[in-house]
Amino acid sequence: MPGISIHAVDIGRGVAAKGLRVRVDRIGDETSTFVADGLVGANGLVNAAALGGVMPRGVYEATFYIGEYLAAGGTTPTFLDIVPFRFAINDPESHCHLPFKFTPYGFSCFRGAE
Amino acid sequence: MPGISIHAVDIGRGVAAKGLRVRVDRIGDETSTFVADGLVGANGLVNAAALGGVMPRGVYEATFYIGEYLAAGGTTPTFLDIVPFRFAINDPESHCHLPFKFTPYGFSCFRGAE
Amino acid sequence: MPGISIHAVDIGRGVAAKGLRVRVDRIGDETSTFVADGLVGANGLVNAAALGGVMPRGVYEATFYIGEYLAAGGTTPTFLDIVPFRFAINDPESHCHLPFKFTPYGFSCFRGAE
Amino acid sequence: MPGISIHAVDIGRGVAAKGLRVRVDRIGDETSTFVADGLVGANGLVNAAALGGVMPRGVYEATFYIGEYLAAGGTTPTFLDIVPFRFAINDPESHCHLPFKFTPYGFSCFRGAE
Repeated sequence: MPGISIHAVDIGRGVAAKGLRVRVDRIGDETSTFVADGLVGANGLVNAAALGGVMPRGVYEATFYIGEYLAAGGTTPTFLDIVPFRFAINDPESHCHLPFKFTPYGFSCFRGAE
Repeated sequence: MPGISIHAVDIGRGVAAKGLRVRVDRIGDETSTFVADGLVGANGLVNAAALGGVMPRGVYEATFYIGEYLAAGGTTPTFLDIVPFRFAINDPESHCHLPFKFTPYGFSCFRGAE
Repeated sequence: MPGISIHAVDIGRGVAAKGLRVRVDRIGDETSTFVADGLVGANGLVNAAALGGVMPRGVYEATFYIGEYLAAGGTTPTFLDIVPFRFAINDPESHCHLPFKFTPYGFSCFRGAE
Repeated sequence: MPGISIHAVDIGRGVAAKGLRVRVDRIGDETSTFVADGLVGANGLVNAAALGGVMPRGVYEATFYIGEYLAAGGTTPTFLDIVPFRFAINDPESHCHLPFKFTPYGFSCFRGAE
């Protein structure tokens, strides 16, 4: 099943990052192309139908709006705010799963199983 | 849905840790009780029906047999071999998801979304 | 410089895990041997002179007392309490650096540079 | 001691990411300002004298040239290539330590102890 799935967990609080806004763009040499945006749901997954399709080979950037998520939860962001994660898709038929784990002070993201 | 699910990704190679053996025990004050064991499947999940039930409140230990997995793949383990991950279950009705990410030189495991 | 160094950061709060108790044992087939214990200092490093010496080849376990650290900071531990990290030393002359990053819901530890 | 220090470990191979090129820019609303660049040394630290000074409050981006590092080591990069890590400095007098851990398939970076 092609496409991108994004799962986000607030590992400082031990919960899915419900309400976190995430956006995905395809990064070209000179211009970027909007792919999708959506909010993380209660199950931790970004809800965005446009992520389910075949993605052309290329460089992509997922943007995680951590600052506004933290602020909405009562934490003043001092380190992470708008967080880009840049990666490539080489095989448009394969699925790319991004499990994103963060605290206000950093994050981890390693591509999930193919 | 109660129970424990375990997902293991070999982040050094970027693939599900297919074939990795994992065992779960409940750790008591004096004795431990076997809960389940199984192998990681092609989807990264440990196949073990016994993990699907309600787990009594208590301390658990998942054991990941990283050394034998690495050896089977042609890598001589020099740092991680038999890896315990100890955690508690406080609410037997909740689901506990353990996304385990490793290389031969370390690992990361933060409880997934509730 | 041989020996083991341990650095612990509370990545949920973005600070060194000052006051965290850590203990190191050498794990034998039948018995374990106490190596050292100490508290994490303001710089994040475990203060324990015994960690500075040559370590015989073998299996070691560092134990991180996360539950008591969290409780002292006003957080009730519900997932991590007494956390073992098991690893091997193959070359007694090399230095083993363990950068331990944790929240109440998980941790990451990948051996530092040799 | 103010400034930024960056430490990079190739956790897929268990070694300091010697030779990895890293660049730091300060990100303004409309333009970015070059701060420093350098290579990771044998001790894992980026060598760049300009990182040692007081950094004005603001948003910064460290760029890690993972693709060229992997290629130099004989690995064809298929997922990570040019990797940005964006963060803020709020207190110019404090020290910002970035411990960057990566494989070809992802990375982790949580601010070190203050």
